[in-house]
Amino acid sequence: MTDKIMLAHGGGGTLMQELINKDIVPAVADGSLFELTDSALLDLPGGRVAFTTDSFVVRPLVFPGGDIGRLAVCGTVNDLAAAGALPVALALGLIIEEGLDMEVLRTMLTSIGSAAREAGVKVVTGDTKVVEKGAANELFINTSGVGVLTGTIEYSVSRIAPGDSVIINGFIGDHGIAVMSARNELNFVSPVESDAAPLGDMVQTILREFGDKVKCMKDPTRGGLAGCLNEMAQNVGFFVDQDSIPLRPAVKGACQMLGLDELTVANEGKMVFIVDSSAEKEVLALLQRHPFGKDAAIIGHIDKRAGLVRMQTALGGERIINPPYGEELPRIC
Amino acid sequence: MTDKIMLAHGGGGTLMQELINKDIVPAVADGSLFELTDSALLDLPGGRVAFTTDSFVVRPLVFPGGDIGRLAVCGTVNDLAAAGALPVALALGLIIEEGLDMEVLRTMLTSIGSAAREAGVKVVTGDTKVVEKGAANELFINTSGVGVLTGTIEYSVSRIAPGDSVIINGFIGDHGIAVMSARNELNFVSPVESDAAPLGDMVQTILREFGDKVKCMKDPTRGGLAGCLNEMAQNVGFFVDQDSIPLRPAVKGACQMLGLDELTVANEGKMVFIVDSSAEKEVLALLQRHPFGKDAAIIGHIDKRAGLVRMQTALGGERIINPPYGEELPRIC
Repeated sequence: MTDKIMLAHGGGGTLMQELINKDIVPAVADGSLFELTDSALLDLPGGRVAFTTDSFVVRPLVFPGGDIGRLAVCGTVNDLAAAGALPVALALGLIIEEGLDMEVLRTMLTSIGSAAREAGVKVVTGDTKVVEKGAANELFINTSGVGVLTGTIEYSVSRIAPGDSVIINGFIGDHGIAVMSARNELNFVSPVESDAAPLGDMVQTILREFGDKVKCMKDPTRGGLAGCLNEMAQNVGFFVDQDSIPLRPAVKGACQMLGLDELTVANEGKMVFIVDSSAEKEVLALLQRHPFGKDAAIIGHIDKRAGLVRMQTALGGERIINPPYGEELPRIC
Repeated sequence: MTDKIMLAHGGGGTLMQELINKDIVPAVADGSLFELTDSALLDLPGGRVAFTTDSFVVRPLVFPGGDIGRLAVCGTVNDLAAAGALPVALALGLIIEEGLDMEVLRTMLTSIGSAAREAGVKVVTGDTKVVEKGAANELFINTSGVGVLTGTIEYSVSRIAPGDSVIINGFIGDHGIAVMSARNELNFVSPVESDAAPLGDMVQTILREFGDKVKCMKDPTRGGLAGCLNEMAQNVGFFVDQDSIPLRPAVKGACQMLGLDELTVANEGKMVFIVDSSAEKEVLALLQRHPFGKDAAIIGHIDKRAGLVRMQTALGGERIINPPYGEELPRIC
């Protein structure tokens, strides 16, 4: 067995079968075999099914607090969680650059398997492509996910109403800063670790208790909190309080140094909950008892100024939070 | 609007929303909107669900008879069809290289929409990433698919028994040769067009009539017919007759010129059916009445020599068809 990925590993032949059977399946599928057929068959309980996809192109592959493998699981699991679905199955699409160290690939696969177990989701099917050296950057991963809706409520922005409370489960900006600190071309060292985490369990814990009080959920990934709130501000407005938004001093410092707005920096383990204000304290308390929610905070409320996200600044002023135009930090997920 | 894809198009901000709302959704989703949330909700009828994923990295993006967009739909639809599932929904993951002409992207999106309509499947959710120039080759597409099992039979290699017949729905090798003929570095011109086609309807037509007589199906994509038959030859052997395998003279000629074995060249509109021999003639006749099966042929039968794929050659000899080791033609899908 060579220690580098070769084009032939993606060729649909013996070498690809070996890679799948010896490296991919044992690492990501907990030893159980993929179906030989190219589709996995799922026995789902009755009801509605959530379906999502996400590609991951983060650079570098490994960064403080995570790697592309953990990210690929968490990102898709969290998209399902945001829809109110219990994540059930993942499909794993690998696009590998010829010449990638086999050990690097194995480490990423192990990370995928570990994150999937943590998330309580099974990798049930996959696809492997290899492209020539220079035709991709080391490794791109696509994960698609299927989840089942556990209740009858369809969480959506149309449920949001003035007076609702806005809650986030912890510190913002950790992921983006952790990835940037791992880039060789940027000369800064940061103690910040990525927040990449699978939030399915945390979300289900909230929904089991307060499912009818939750209006909508969204994970503030690319575009950060600013992008997330602006996407949700369709028929209503948001008013948030800068002082109440959990922000680590190290992230604040790194953002100042890099000239970034922390509100636009990506998160991979955060969820924004819009909840009926009558339940805000109970939802907050329950979130804070969960490992991924211990720094949760109520950060604002909904008002009637449709399309507008406003922020009370720490200095007492008011600022409009515009949606980011493009990306301040490319390839952070 | 710029006419080139910029990094900012993948940034989760206003520019990405514009790309999604103005270009992606109208082209691929038939004008209906993706859910704003990152997951689509599917109302599936009761029963088992098939789930699959496939990434497409074909080079060049456009080739005789198809393009990466059509391929991305057909490949995933055909994986679902091979499982006996009716394709229902696709998720579309785009990884775009910075600098790609917007017109090229639009053309590929239009092709995706057109192929999805032809396949009777809906693109319900998606993800867009942009990587720096040089970090990917123009465009990679991942499609994941969900389908519903229409019957109670689970088609699998374990159902195959000695005496069963092996049927294919038409000419082999067209796709691989069509792609190779479009590569600038190869100096040959070929009249061959890719066979890329969505086979869901053809397969369902067969299963409705002969579902219990069909043992297993598999699409001979990467690795070609040789790879496909070898993957199915687990507990049984295959014996095929070279003269009966549909092969266009132009494909045969191109393979000879390029030093390729046509049995290992990829197809994207072919399905191998293993059927009870008592129904072989009826299945063949029904296939031949379908537009994608008019050149269908019975190409061999199953025997007891487990793990072995043998071929009666045109010259009267016998040859063992080994699984390809790697890929003879990289990036043909």
